[in-house]
Amino acid sequence: MVTFNEIKEAHKRILPYIHRTPILTNRSLNLLSSSKLYFKCENFQRTGSFKIRGATNAVELLSQDKINRGIATASSGNHGAALSMAVKRRGGRVTVVMPSNTPKIKVENVKRNGGNIIWCAPNQNSREKTLNELVNKNGSIIIHPYNDKRIVTGQATAGLEFLEDQPDLDCIITPLSGGGLLSGTLSSVKKMKSSIKVFGAEPEEADDAFRSLELGKIVKNDTTNTICDGLRAQIGTITFPIIKNYVDGIITVSEDDIKDAMRMIWERMKIIIEPSCSITLAAVLKQKSKFKNLKIGLILSGGNVDLDQLPW
Amino acid sequence: MVTFNEIKEAHKRILPYIHRTPILTNRSLNLLSSSKLYFKCENFQRTGSFKIRGATNAVELLSQDKINRGIATASSGNHGAALSMAVKRRGGRVTVVMPSNTPKIKVENVKRNGGNIIWCAPNQNSREKTLNELVNKNGSIIIHPYNDKRIVTGQATAGLEFLEDQPDLDCIITPLSGGGLLSGTLSSVKKMKSSIKVFGAEPEEADDAFRSLELGKIVKNDTTNTICDGLRAQIGTITFPIIKNYVDGIITVSEDDIKDAMRMIWERMKIIIEPSCSITLAAVLKQKSKFKNLKIGLILSGGNVDLDQLPW
Repeated sequence: MVTFNEIKEAHKRILPYIHRTPILTNRSLNLLSSSKLYFKCENFQRTGSFKIRGATNAVELLSQDKINRGIATASSGNHGAALSMAVKRRGGRVTVVMPSNTPKIKVENVKRNGGNIIWCAPNQNSREKTLNELVNKNGSIIIHPYNDKRIVTGQATAGLEFLEDQPDLDCIITPLSGGGLLSGTLSSVKKMKSSIKVFGAEPEEADDAFRSLELGKIVKNDTTNTICDGLRAQIGTITFPIIKNYVDGIITVSEDDIKDAMRMIWERMKIIIEPSCSITLAAVLKQKSKFKNLKIGLILSGGNVDLDQLPW
Repeated sequence: MVTFNEIKEAHKRILPYIHRTPILTNRSLNLLSSSKLYFKCENFQRTGSFKIRGATNAVELLSQDKINRGIATASSGNHGAALSMAVKRRGGRVTVVMPSNTPKIKVENVKRNGGNIIWCAPNQNSREKTLNELVNKNGSIIIHPYNDKRIVTGQATAGLEFLEDQPDLDCIITPLSGGGLLSGTLSSVKKMKSSIKVFGAEPEEADDAFRSLELGKIVKNDTTNTICDGLRAQIGTITFPIIKNYVDGIITVSEDDIKDAMRMIWERMKIIIEPSCSITLAAVLKQKSKFKNLKIGLILSGGNVDLDQLPW
């Protein structure tokens, strides 16, 4: 686990380069869920997702010598764009290994922030092989999108801000993919408020973390056939132990429920969010009685959606 | 013209029933426009548009006896929903005459807020005829969407808040249709800051106000063939004199530029807005050199968009 002190230090470190994102509420979604919902809007974050927190923290901790060697990562998009912004500010080069089925807007977001792209097949093996070949060839330094303590510490700052701004939350739900955001959130908010419950929301179609938790050891995704392009990664060896020790539950959600929740947030809150974070609202609606009358914090992790490929 | 005192009274009157909407900024749109843009987000307003300001002001000024007679209006949607909410709170009935080509989301918004709908053909004559027949039949009281001093006074409160929260604005641009928002904005902000410039943005395809201003007298729309379903109305006899006396210019915008600006705001700001207000950004981009380096306030008037009928 990362310490609370490390998280506070990371927050200070990245503060000049991130937004303190607002918390929104919505009357009609409160009525619908019979609870009080607080949405932490990381879709308004720089580069359009919370990923800038971890990426900036990791990059700011590197010496200029290391930056100059070049940075590489494998990412479905949001970490790649965030890393590109963070590295470019320090004058370095970034190469992002991206699966061939990445939405166009995320590809463009990497390019706009100065990253170079190398394509791989849309599976974990191809990702790793392509990245390793690259690093062996040019000596770049890898910054993993989530299985890295510096990344977890950076992502933890979203929860830190959330609870500072809304201290009366009873629980927090985050999307769950590789586990960076969830393990980070656990690391910060459980230290700030011992009574708070924290849940992960994961697609049924990519439920490796849910099954890993049940079995007590990491198992692989059977499928990653989900609309949530940000939630197809495999739970990490650094993130899983934190989640296993501290999480209060993982809620899996069907594709239809994820799409419905996405449309509800668009129509009622008038904000653009990815399906990868509408899953948090879908999780509340799936377990309505469990969350009834509680104050629930939902982290809306990103807003990079391809407007030509909407799921309705 | 309505007085500044009346506007302040109206603001006090409606304050319990509206949101004080936030002002957003966006780095990449500032770069693109070579100016500093401030977006007043009435898309986050109750019922999804600024119309709740005027409607609430008008309704709160009515005696309970009058409320009990029933309220009627003709509206392309946002005024209808706002009026329904304001009247329902006071226990009255609302009937909204709506053109048959109104987007589904606006129809549902009226229904959800308790309004009854009567359909008319999508032109000014049919609107008026249908509404008059209704009033003759059941004695309802009409609250016009814009050609009503109480409405103008209510809409003026958006500009009041805008300049209170961002006093250093050099100019403000509002969408322009019947003229309620523009005449209201002129009435408030010109009193608060004599140096401020105020512009209206109007579709080329429904440019009656632009031509009326050129000729010095009200002329009719030749066409209303615009994607901006909220900007198809005819400039009013109450709103036009205020606009004629105080406005610093009307900027007309093409359909393509309106659509491009809408997509830019969705993609970069991650907020959902109607084409009827993306026209304000399109106006800035059309006259970039005129607005260069200025602090420009844009009123994003509403966010009720049919997600099944996007223009791209």
